[in-house]
Amino acid sequence: VLRLGVDIGGTNLRLALVEVGIGAVFASRKERHADPSPQAVVAAAARLGRDLAAGAGLSSQVAAGVGVAGQCRGASGLVLSAPNLGWRDVPFGEMAARALGAPVRVANDLSAAALGEQRFGAARGVEDAVLFFVGSGVGAGLILGGRLHEGAGGVAGEVGHVKVAAPGGLPERRCGCGALGCLESWAGGVAIAERAREAAAAGRSEALRALCGGDPARIDAGLVERACAGGDPWARGLWEEVGALLGDAVANLAALLDPARVVLGGGVLAAAPALRLLLVERAMARALPAAARDLQMVPSELGDDAGLVGAALLAP
Amino acid sequence: VLRLGVDIGGTNLRLALVEVGIGAVFASRKERHADPSPQAVVAAAARLGRDLAAGAGLSSQVAAGVGVAGQCRGASGLVLSAPNLGWRDVPFGEMAARALGAPVRVANDLSAAALGEQRFGAARGVEDAVLFFVGSGVGAGLILGGRLHEGAGGVAGEVGHVKVAAPGGLPERRCGCGALGCLESWAGGVAIAERAREAAAAGRSEALRALCGGDPARIDAGLVERACAGGDPWARGLWEEVGALLGDAVANLAALLDPARVVLGGGVLAAAPALRLLLVERAMARALPAAARDLQMVPSELGDDAGLVGAALLAP
Repeated sequence: VLRLGVDIGGTNLRLALVEVGIGAVFASRKERHADPSPQAVVAAAARLGRDLAAGAGLSSQVAAGVGVAGQCRGASGLVLSAPNLGWRDVPFGEMAARALGAPVRVANDLSAAALGEQRFGAARGVEDAVLFFVGSGVGAGLILGGRLHEGAGGVAGEVGHVKVAAPGGLPERRCGCGALGCLESWAGGVAIAERAREAAAAGRSEALRALCGGDPARIDAGLVERACAGGDPWARGLWEEVGALLGDAVANLAALLDPARVVLGGGVLAAAPALRLLLVERAMARALPAAARDLQMVPSELGDDAGLVGAALLAP
Repeated sequence: VLRLGVDIGGTNLRLALVEVGIGAVFASRKERHADPSPQAVVAAAARLGRDLAAGAGLSSQVAAGVGVAGQCRGASGLVLSAPNLGWRDVPFGEMAARALGAPVRVANDLSAAALGEQRFGAARGVEDAVLFFVGSGVGAGLILGGRLHEGAGGVAGEVGHVKVAAPGGLPERRCGCGALGCLESWAGGVAIAERAREAAAAGRSEALRALCGGDPARIDAGLVERACAGGDPWARGLWEEVGALLGDAVANLAALLDPARVVLGGGVLAAAPALRLLLVERAMARALPAAARDLQMVPSELGDDAGLVGAALLAP
C-alpha cells in the first residue's frame, strides 16, 4: 500500500511515496522552502505530491501523513506553534487535505520519526522507546506501551523546552520559543553554532577560526567536532558541557519513563561522535540504576527517512 | 467483586478490602512496621489479610494487589530497590502469593495510586494524567493513553530522581538512593524536615524554634508551613526554593508528556497550601505554553486511599 509521507522542517520540505507494509521509500522529493508561509508550503507540497503520484502512475491522490517541526494538535490538524517556520495556530491539516485532495493526518515531526523507527528502524521489538533528537533544536518522540504517545494536546516529547540551569554560571539564553532556561537554548544545533561563532570571533578558539577559513557562518556542530578531535580546548569544553546537559536529559527521561531503548537521532549527533559518547557516558552515570540497568542507547537506523516513513504510517 | 489492596510504605503497612467495581473501601487495617524486613512485612500482611477476610465472612483468600514504595518490576513481582524499607532485589510477589495463598500483582505504590485516581478519583475522564506526589519522597504515577505506564522495567515515574541543579549555590545533598543531585534530596518531606531542623538549630528561623517547643524532631513540612504563614522569612524562602524546584519538575513533565491533568498528592502538599500555590504558579509560568494551555492541576481526591484502591484494581 502506498501512502504519502510529508516532512516539514525549518529549512526543507520533503515528500516520499512510501510502501507502508515494508517501510520502503518508493520515490522522494526534497526542496528548500522558497517561502515558509503555510500557503506557500502547502502549495509546494501539493505540487510535489502530484509529481510523485504521476511518476508512480497513480491516478488518484493517496492519503498523506504530515510531520511538522512544531507543536501540533495532531487529531485536529492544528499547528499551534512552529517557531522555525514562523507559524502559529495554523489549521494545516485542513489546508493540506484541500490542496492534496486526500485525507491528511498531521503530527509533530519527531513523533512521526519515532513511529518510523519503531516499525522499521532502531526501535523495533520494544514496547517503550524514546527517539532523542538533536538537530537544529532538541526534541523527542515517544513510543510508550507500544503506541505513539502524543499527549492530551499533541505536544508531548518537547524535551528541548525542559528547563535547565545555565551551565557554569553563564547568563541565560533566550530560546526560539521565547522562554529562558530551555535545554535547546544551550544544546541545540542552532545554539551550538551561535556559541561557537561567538568563541571564534572573540579569539577563544584558534582551531574554529582556522577551520572556518575566515567565514564564521560556516561554523556548525560538525566543525566543533573537528576542532575537538584536533585537541582544541574550547571545543572540548563545549562538548563536555553540552554532553552533560544532553546526558542529564536522557537520564531524566529514563527515570521518568523507563524506556527499554533510547534511539539517538538528528544531524548534530550524527556529525559529532565525540559528543555522542559524552552524552551516553553521562546518561549512564546519572540515570537511576534501576532504570539504567537494561537501558539500550542506539543510533537511529532510518536517519532522515524516519520522519517520512513515520508520517506515511500515520496517513489515514 | 472484593479484592485485597496492600500498600507498603516506608513507615506503615496498610491493607483494604476494596469493592473494585465502585472503588469503595469495605474494611481496612493499618499498622506501623514493627520490623521492615520483607519476611516480617509479608507475615504481617498475611495476618491482617486473614483478619480482613474473616471479618467480611470470606471463606477463601482473595486476589491481592500490592503497592510498594520502591522500584518494582511489577510483572515479575521483584522489588529492585525500596530504600526506605532497606529492600533490594526482593522477590516480594512470590513471597506474598505464598503467604496470602492467593494470586498477587506487585507495583510501585504511586503507579497503584495513579490507577486509583484514574478510575475513581481526580484523574477520571482523561486519557493522560500524572499523579505528582510529594510525601517523604517525591514521585509520580503515569496514566498515558488511558493506561498505567510502568515502563520497560517497571520503574517509570521516578521523578524524585530526576537530576536538578543545587538551588542558590548550596552544596549538593546525597539522596536516599545514593546519588547526588536528585530532586527528592531537596524537595521531599524528609529533606525539607532535615533542612528545617538545621535552620532551627543554627538559629536561622526563630519561628521554627518556637513552634517546635524545643524538640527539633517535631519539625516537619507542616511546621514549616505554619512558620511561613506566620511571616518567618526563612520558612518563606524555603517554600519559594522548594516550590520552584517542584514547579519546574511539573513544567518539565508537562513539556515531555503533555498530560491533560496533573493530580497533586502526598502528605507534604496536603499539609502546605502555601507551597502548593507556589508550585502551581511556577509550573504554569515555566511550562511550554502549548502544553500549559489546557493543563489542569488539581488536588488528589482519594488521598491515602488511592494506593489501596489502585492496588486492589491491579489484583489478578
